[in-house]
Amino acid sequence: MRFGANYTPSKHWWHTWLDFEPDSIRRDLDQLAGLGLDHVRVFPIWSVFQPNRGVVREKAVEQLLELVRIGARAGLDVTVDGIQGHLSSFDFYPSWTQTWHHRNVFTDPDVLEGQVLLLRTLATALRGEPNFLGMTLGNEMNNLVAHNPCTAAEVDVWLDQLLEAVNAADPDHPHCHSAFDDAWYVDDHPFTPLASATKGAMTTVHPWVFTLNAARRYGPQSTEIHHLAEYGTELARAYGTPDRVIWVQEVGAPAPHIPVEHAVEYAEQTIGNVATCQNVWGLTWWCSHDVNRRFIDYPELEYGLGLFDSDGNAKPLAKAVQKAVHAELPKPVDRTTALLFDGKRSDSGPGGRFFEAWMRLAAEGRRPAIVRESSPEYLAARGVTEVLTV
Amino acid sequence: MRFGANYTPSKHWWHTWLDFEPDSIRRDLDQLAGLGLDHVRVFPIWSVFQPNRGVVREKAVEQLLELVRIGARAGLDVTVDGIQGHLSSFDFYPSWTQTWHHRNVFTDPDVLEGQVLLLRTLATALRGEPNFLGMTLGNEMNNLVAHNPCTAAEVDVWLDQLLEAVNAADPDHPHCHSAFDDAWYVDDHPFTPLASATKGAMTTVHPWVFTLNAARRYGPQSTEIHHLAEYGTELARAYGTPDRVIWVQEVGAPAPHIPVEHAVEYAEQTIGNVATCQNVWGLTWWCSHDVNRRFIDYPELEYGLGLFDSDGNAKPLAKAVQKAVHAELPKPVDRTTALLFDGKRSDSGPGGRFFEAWMRLAAEGRRPAIVRESSPEYLAARGVTEVLTV
Repeated sequence: MRFGANYTPSKHWWHTWLDFEPDSIRRDLDQLAGLGLDHVRVFPIWSVFQPNRGVVREKAVEQLLELVRIGARAGLDVTVDGIQGHLSSFDFYPSWTQTWHHRNVFTDPDVLEGQVLLLRTLATALRGEPNFLGMTLGNEMNNLVAHNPCTAAEVDVWLDQLLEAVNAADPDHPHCHSAFDDAWYVDDHPFTPLASATKGAMTTVHPWVFTLNAARRYGPQSTEIHHLAEYGTELARAYGTPDRVIWVQEVGAPAPHIPVEHAVEYAEQTIGNVATCQNVWGLTWWCSHDVNRRFIDYPELEYGLGLFDSDGNAKPLAKAVQKAVHAELPKPVDRTTALLFDGKRSDSGPGGRFFEAWMRLAAEGRRPAIVRESSPEYLAARGVTEVLTV
Repeated sequence: MRFGANYTPSKHWWHTWLDFEPDSIRRDLDQLAGLGLDHVRVFPIWSVFQPNRGVVREKAVEQLLELVRIGARAGLDVTVDGIQGHLSSFDFYPSWTQTWHHRNVFTDPDVLEGQVLLLRTLATALRGEPNFLGMTLGNEMNNLVAHNPCTAAEVDVWLDQLLEAVNAADPDHPHCHSAFDDAWYVDDHPFTPLASATKGAMTTVHPWVFTLNAARRYGPQSTEIHHLAEYGTELARAYGTPDRVIWVQEVGAPAPHIPVEHAVEYAEQTIGNVATCQNVWGLTWWCSHDVNRRFIDYPELEYGLGLFDSDGNAKPLAKAVQKAVHAELPKPVDRTTALLFDGKRSDSGPGGRFFEAWMRLAAEGRRPAIVRESSPEYLAARGVTEVLTV
């Protein structure tokens, strides 16, 4: 299992594309490599990279490449999200998708053409870098659904077309997409679990403890919270093929959902429990550095999510992650007992009937798989010998 | 009367803040100075200058200063619009005013605080530059009204607060605001003629021939079009004090409203007719350079408005403006006959009863003033001896 961090530049946050300072980035990445992490996930800002639908800025692409190479020198691999889109509560729309030029970013064919241009340009530039890991279409693009209404069928088409564009530009790396938890837990959300679990090279999960108020509902030291990322991983597995690789792409300890004094325990438990899952590509902590307080208006919890503070000091969390990376983690376990999930998405989320049934088993020390079908062939492929129902 | 151009960088348009290339800007400004122009109006992009409500980027301010100094070396004065806001059909909103952070840009106190920070920072940085002319709050901010509903009273408060901030930061230069023609011609538009004619150091007018389809309605070679900027200037005068200085801040020849073959004639007529108005600070042509075709999605007319094409070749329009600048223009005339305007704003716009009455006089070779009151004191101050009614 690989360990990394979602990179949030200490000095300029992702406004660093406007004020690109290699020395500051180098210091940040050296710190992360120093923890034993092996990769970072990085985020172009859409409006800065593509200020016009027909123009992906050459200098921005050069700076992205420079960032990847700074990563290489630090000993880090780099994975790149294409379209931001959404980051830490802020949406970054280029002017050509807004107001007088408003066009739905999921369904408008001209916007799609622009997005394809951006992703193709980035993938083409990145594919030759030895430490490039692949692209994610964009960070939690489903945050844009509220302002760009679309159906599940439209999202599926959009995902297929963008993934095809990236795969065509760079067939050599695994490319993914990502969604925040509504995809898994909200019944009518147009980003579906099947889209997450079948499109792209891996399934990405972002099991955040604030989703549906999970940490407040169960408590920050509860079974439900300590096993949340493990559960999210196993739930995702139920929607894909048995051998589908899963990437815990974002997980973090947002206060006050996880009070600061419990953050280390939360990280240890989360990492240890995810480690028991089969076929996990890796775990990427959110995030590397606290948001500098000179940047205002972020939700309060965004300021304290870093492994390092914005002055570059390692927080206790950094040491916990460092320890986990170097420790003998639990081995992936054979999950021979599965819990059959045949309900609605909301049943499987925090507060849901299925979620709580799975957590009751976890509280007994069991590590159930999750299945959505119980044919002998499927169960055999999953290595499941016993199926429980809720 | 001073002559200048609204500067539109030939290489990167105003995305030049993302790709700042002094050499290209120097070539552009040398070309403009070569025509005999004495100033340019320039446009920071809000989302680039202030990506976060609490942060006005130092580097952006430095680049703005560098642009002003390149202007100085070319022999050009520079006037700076603060908040873009709106340019050539595109709106540039920072993410902290959009979607999850949506706040009305005219009425939200936190947004106001951010705008004050931006304007104060720019005015403070600019005030010491010998060729700095002053600021306009932003280009036609009333284009943002449609997506930020507000009342006239709210706009007045907003204008007063921002002008106060700029004047406090730089008491040495005249600072203005600007609005597109709806302020003058649309009855319920919250930017009012009185706000334009009484707030800030000068009244700015942007008499565009496409407003209310004027050029199509009357024809590109009509009295109405050739006298449109003169009329707009005199109408603006009716709303302010008799000695109020007026700046024809934007005027241009958009095809097909003004077909290319009539552009030179339109420029000559417009400049010559504006020259007959008293107390005009200057005329600033829109714009310096055609929009490069690699930038897509602009309304078609935006691509051809330049004095120079995007390769830097002077168009016939450039020569017409150059000739006008060096020619003996008509002298300001005493407008002893006034037409009394006591109608609604819409009466005074193209197609309106008052507009057409004034134009009938102009067609007879007369140059009427416009007054909104007829007290002997006021008329005396205006030098008006005869008042006609519509």
